[in-house]
Amino acid sequence: MGMIGGGPGAFIGPVHRYAAEMDREIELVAGVFSSDAGRSLAAADAYRTDPARAYPTLEAMFAAERARPDGIDFVTIVSPNHHHLPAARAALAAGLPVMTDKPLTATLAQAHELAGLVRAAGLPFGVTYTYSGYPLVREARARIAAGALGAIRKIVVEYPQGWLAGEAVGKQAEWRVDPARAGLGGCIGDIGVHAFHLAEFISGLKVTHLLADLGAVVPGRALDDDCTVLLRFAGADGSAARGVLLASQIEVGERNGLRIRLYGEKGGLTWRQETPNALEWATLDGRHEIVHAGGGLLGPDALARTRTPAGHPEGYLEAFANLYRDFAAKLRGEPAPLLPGLDDGLRGMAFIATAVEASRAGAGWVPLTV
Amino acid sequence: MGMIGGGPGAFIGPVHRYAAEMDREIELVAGVFSSDAGRSLAAADAYRTDPARAYPTLEAMFAAERARPDGIDFVTIVSPNHHHLPAARAALAAGLPVMTDKPLTATLAQAHELAGLVRAAGLPFGVTYTYSGYPLVREARARIAAGALGAIRKIVVEYPQGWLAGEAVGKQAEWRVDPARAGLGGCIGDIGVHAFHLAEFISGLKVTHLLADLGAVVPGRALDDDCTVLLRFAGADGSAARGVLLASQIEVGERNGLRIRLYGEKGGLTWRQETPNALEWATLDGRHEIVHAGGGLLGPDALARTRTPAGHPEGYLEAFANLYRDFAAKLRGEPAPLLPGLDDGLRGMAFIATAVEASRAGAGWVPLTV
Amino acid sequence: MGMIGGGPGAFIGPVHRYAAEMDREIELVAGVFSSDAGRSLAAADAYRTDPARAYPTLEAMFAAERARPDGIDFVTIVSPNHHHLPAARAALAAGLPVMTDKPLTATLAQAHELAGLVRAAGLPFGVTYTYSGYPLVREARARIAAGALGAIRKIVVEYPQGWLAGEAVGKQAEWRVDPARAGLGGCIGDIGVHAFHLAEFISGLKVTHLLADLGAVVPGRALDDDCTVLLRFAGADGSAARGVLLASQIEVGERNGLRIRLYGEKGGLTWRQETPNALEWATLDGRHEIVHAGGGLLGPDALARTRTPAGHPEGYLEAFANLYRDFAAKLRGEPAPLLPGLDDGLRGMAFIATAVEASRAGAGWVPLTV
Amino acid sequence: MGMIGGGPGAFIGPVHRYAAEMDREIELVAGVFSSDAGRSLAAADAYRTDPARAYPTLEAMFAAERARPDGIDFVTIVSPNHHHLPAARAALAAGLPVMTDKPLTATLAQAHELAGLVRAAGLPFGVTYTYSGYPLVREARARIAAGALGAIRKIVVEYPQGWLAGEAVGKQAEWRVDPARAGLGGCIGDIGVHAFHLAEFISGLKVTHLLADLGAVVPGRALDDDCTVLLRFAGADGSAARGVLLASQIEVGERNGLRIRLYGEKGGLTWRQETPNALEWATLDGRHEIVHAGGGLLGPDALARTRTPAGHPEGYLEAFANLYRDFAAKLRGEPAPLLPGLDDGLRGMAFIATAVEASRAGAGWVPLTV
Repeated sequence: MGMIGGGPGAFIGPVHRYAAEMDREIELVAGVFSSDAGRSLAAADAYRTDPARAYPTLEAMFAAERARPDGIDFVTIVSPNHHHLPAARAALAAGLPVMTDKPLTATLAQAHELAGLVRAAGLPFGVTYTYSGYPLVREARARIAAGALGAIRKIVVEYPQGWLAGEAVGKQAEWRVDPARAGLGGCIGDIGVHAFHLAEFISGLKVTHLLADLGAVVPGRALDDDCTVLLRFAGADGSAARGVLLASQIEVGERNGLRIRLYGEKGGLTWRQETPNALEWATLDGRHEIVHAGGGLLGPDALARTRTPAGHPEGYLEAFANLYRDFAAKLRGEPAPLLPGLDDGLRGMAFIATAVEASRAGAGWVPLTV
Repeated sequence: MGMIGGGPGAFIGPVHRYAAEMDREIELVAGVFSSDAGRSLAAADAYRTDPARAYPTLEAMFAAERARPDGIDFVTIVSPNHHHLPAARAALAAGLPVMTDKPLTATLAQAHELAGLVRAAGLPFGVTYTYSGYPLVREARARIAAGALGAIRKIVVEYPQGWLAGEAVGKQAEWRVDPARAGLGGCIGDIGVHAFHLAEFISGLKVTHLLADLGAVVPGRALDDDCTVLLRFAGADGSAARGVLLASQIEVGERNGLRIRLYGEKGGLTWRQETPNALEWATLDGRHEIVHAGGGLLGPDALARTRTPAGHPEGYLEAFANLYRDFAAKLRGEPAPLLPGLDDGLRGMAFIATAVEASRAGAGWVPLTV
Repeated sequence: MGMIGGGPGAFIGPVHRYAAEMDREIELVAGVFSSDAGRSLAAADAYRTDPARAYPTLEAMFAAERARPDGIDFVTIVSPNHHHLPAARAALAAGLPVMTDKPLTATLAQAHELAGLVRAAGLPFGVTYTYSGYPLVREARARIAAGALGAIRKIVVEYPQGWLAGEAVGKQAEWRVDPARAGLGGCIGDIGVHAFHLAEFISGLKVTHLLADLGAVVPGRALDDDCTVLLRFAGADGSAARGVLLASQIEVGERNGLRIRLYGEKGGLTWRQETPNALEWATLDGRHEIVHAGGGLLGPDALARTRTPAGHPEGYLEAFANLYRDFAAKLRGEPAPLLPGLDDGLRGMAFIATAVEASRAGAGWVPLTV
Repeated sequence: MGMIGGGPGAFIGPVHRYAAEMDREIELVAGVFSSDAGRSLAAADAYRTDPARAYPTLEAMFAAERARPDGIDFVTIVSPNHHHLPAARAALAAGLPVMTDKPLTATLAQAHELAGLVRAAGLPFGVTYTYSGYPLVREARARIAAGALGAIRKIVVEYPQGWLAGEAVGKQAEWRVDPARAGLGGCIGDIGVHAFHLAEFISGLKVTHLLADLGAVVPGRALDDDCTVLLRFAGADGSAARGVLLASQIEVGERNGLRIRLYGEKGGLTWRQETPNALEWATLDGRHEIVHAGGGLLGPDALARTRTPAGHPEGYLEAFANLYRDFAAKLRGEPAPLLPGLDDGLRGMAFIATAVEASRAGAGWVPLTV
């Protein structure tokens, strides 16, 4: 694996490294960790990769790696959003599969351009909507698909954070509040899109319409930092559901509180990212169960992505690693139906663009089309 | 105290009895517990009140009680919403103060009529927005008023229930889904209005605009059973805040999950009705505290409404009793500034009417005026 | 009801008043609230009872009340432990049933004397082991009696408090650390005995042997403030179980954290006093359920002692009131099999005396006999 | 790294692999994964290591690896307890540092023999008491060392599991209930020793005396499966504390519920393994704080062993990896004062042996000496 981005000070670069290598199917061997050659080299040192394979440019990496017998087999893109398209374009042109961080790109137009390139290249492509990698998220998805809730009527997905309630200080914060680097969306693109994907992923439904109320609450902020989006979902079978998506980065005291609740005719289900090894399950007759990760009552999707027995907590890195395990399967030509791919990336960008535009225009309910 | 409503099968009548009598300042001695004389008598038996003072009509009660030296000093109205106005009108005409269940009336027009009567009568009047009676709700209010959060930026108040996810069966359910008895609102009037009051009560802010998305999800339902309302708040000092109110009665597995989160420039605060003896408090620098009811760190408002030391859980009945303690103070001519009164009742009805109408019309953002 | 004890500054007197009156079967009308006449009068004022019935001595109360047509029907004893025997003796001699706070008396000899008096009098007698009044405690008992755990193998009951970690200051604390008023036990008599009763009450088993390790941790303390007791239980059917009882009043940060876990061949069960409306239930095959108070899945014992629907928290006062409801039934000659009585009081005193003596002597395992 | 043990069906082998490689300082390259050559080869395939380096015997591994320029630098021993001594003896004889799973050996005599060998060899040596690797465990330790609790008075450490409540079926269970492979202790050696180490690690105190009550509850079990141990601790400064250690493998519904509570003159602290990213902190004046992993309020020990920001849960594998990071530091000659070493291993064995013997003999309090 070659990494694009993830230089000194990045949070997500090391996370990708941990995740990709956890199951020993993938090894980070090269990278353009920074557009600054010195910083790229420093990153290689931190990652303990060969300094000779820390490149200053994409071109350099692709040329040098192609020439090696043990050259990289794919790239992972972990740089800020505005780099996603050019990086992916170059990788695809070099014949390399691509795993990219979310959101897909900085703008919807870029997303469509990238979609064309991916389709034309016919190469494996994945998007790291991390939270879909949690075993109990997959358990929830499987149970719902098997009809355990009956028809879904209501979805509430929340993603509260508080770390941008003050001034945006530091590498992580600065690019996220800068339209030039983050793109269209602030909070909606950084975390709202995770919540959006999670709701569709677990429910098996698709958002058809939305009403967005995005605010830039902290004085001086150019992008949204607090989002409420009303949703309408539809199922392939014609079913319909109501929904709400709340995402915020100004809620002091919240860390990374993604949680989702789904309610159907026959039951309800709750999952919380900060206590990811428990899934709550309720039925119409008053039964209320806690399903534990690693426990014997789980289905095959969840068990196959669990590494330890019940009571031995797994977390964010293990969930992330599950996406890379899926991607590795795809590289080997095996099916990996749960890995978020191009369509999920595109839907996410359409969600961001539609919400931002509808909120700006005060447009009320608008359709979501991709 | 004389009770109007609360006949056999009612949930809330006994609750008012428990609450009113808990501090021994008030005693239930008479009532028109039902418009059916036999059922009224049966209720007197259940309440252990004098059967001779279980009346078949309001007129009978007011006439007989006026004639007694130990006649009732006020009435409490606990019947379905459409009875509130006639009952209150008769009581006020008889010169009696009134405590009434929420919402104030069945329609906004009735509310305005009642407001005129109350103002003209100049008698004590209270509305049982129960949740404002919890000690930690009052603690939250006091801390916010003292500036602990700085300017409030965001309020999320949720009131999920699941008991109407199936067919509406039984006395409690049936009138709540019947427009003739419940009035304008279903879920929004039954529990949404509690959430609305709580948000204004704790924050000290007022809702100025709202955008409502109300749904009748269970097939055949005439009134809303699932509500999302976007809010804008304003403070007396010109401050502004964003907000969301979620209320639902179709969320299977939810019992009575009222919870509120308030976020300001300097901190965040969370309270949950089902674990009412803990208040979560967070600050911008990462401190996260749990404040316990009965503990020594509470302010006077909270301590004065707590009956047991920390660790001895108090609940719904004790919170409700705190409103009656406030009302008793008012009857004695003492100040009871935290008791919800006519204005709170009117604002609640305006909220219900505005939300129902705006949602029906697909009106987008509308002002909330009283 | 006449009250003995509960004067100004007492915590438990008002609690008994709330509890006794909650269901309107009992009314506090008289009392010897203090051995100081002025303080007794002040208490009557606080309780809102007739000042003429606030007596300075037991003799005065019994004489005056006997002379009234509406005189008291029973007494409740809420004074410190060393008063229990003389107060009960006088009440029984006056022909009055007795409800008394735990522990039964200050010493085991007193307990045996009282037992003789109660048996001779043949009058209703109850002991307020409060925690046995919680609906979910009764649910747990009923489920276990019905075999839901299979044979019980292990019981862990803990009662951590922290309020005596510093110096014992104030009326509540002072008598509890004074052997002259508290009797044999400090922590073991104040809260350990609650835990002991709860373990026997829920499990249906009896403690046959114990090994006690009691400490007086805070410098200068004459009585124990931190207790560990190993237990052996036996069932009527010859079954045996291991157990541990932990009680402490020096565990800073603990409020009133009574909790019990019972494990059998087929399942496990957990109940916590500070969140009393949930009961955890697990089975050998990995199922983990939360049972909620007020919910439809409860048995008749629990439902009959619940006043509100699920999600409306009930607490300490409601649990306490359930004991008085049982006592009122007993006064009416109805069965009240769950009300702790003389035998429970005696067993508690035997537990305290045996644990204190065995710990002092470093005796290892000793039998518990009554 | 070469692995000894960890063949097909083992739980802990893959865990060591994940943990050792997570920070990319260590790589698993060889192993005697099983004494069966075919199974050793199968394990190499599962671990994705070179099949040529999957050896059938220790001798073969040490000989072959010594001959390679890139031969292993140390071994990790993950086989059942009775293998620890012979494996470590061979490795030390081959001049290789050793990391070993706990308990140190199967018997105390073996432990002393091993201690002699380790001291004579002068090579780095570590014991994987996993739970000491959690960041918040290290935070707790640092805060206590800095005096935040004042003198510690009481320690309660519990380790409940339920997976051996039924028959012991499967590779994991079978050897643990077999004295020939597990050694002296069942539950006490498998998990009790973790709890013992954790208590000493966090508190900085040492156990001086214990009273053990070990039971073999499940019919037919030869080793203990349910343990209660009373403890006395002493500090280097002469301070003393009381303690209790509870460990069980028959508590149905418990997964891996290790938790520890420490109480001092000035405060109390609680950590739970199943929700390892929160630490509860209470003070004598009623303050109750939650400290979050990854948050800015942590000290350097905790921050240096955290890989993600607050709200991104880390778990068991990351904690385990922290021990390997310490071990890697030690291999480089850097200080790693928090890595459990020979003395911790010896103390653990002394604890097991003393508890087993004292319980069998009904000996009451006995000293713990190493």
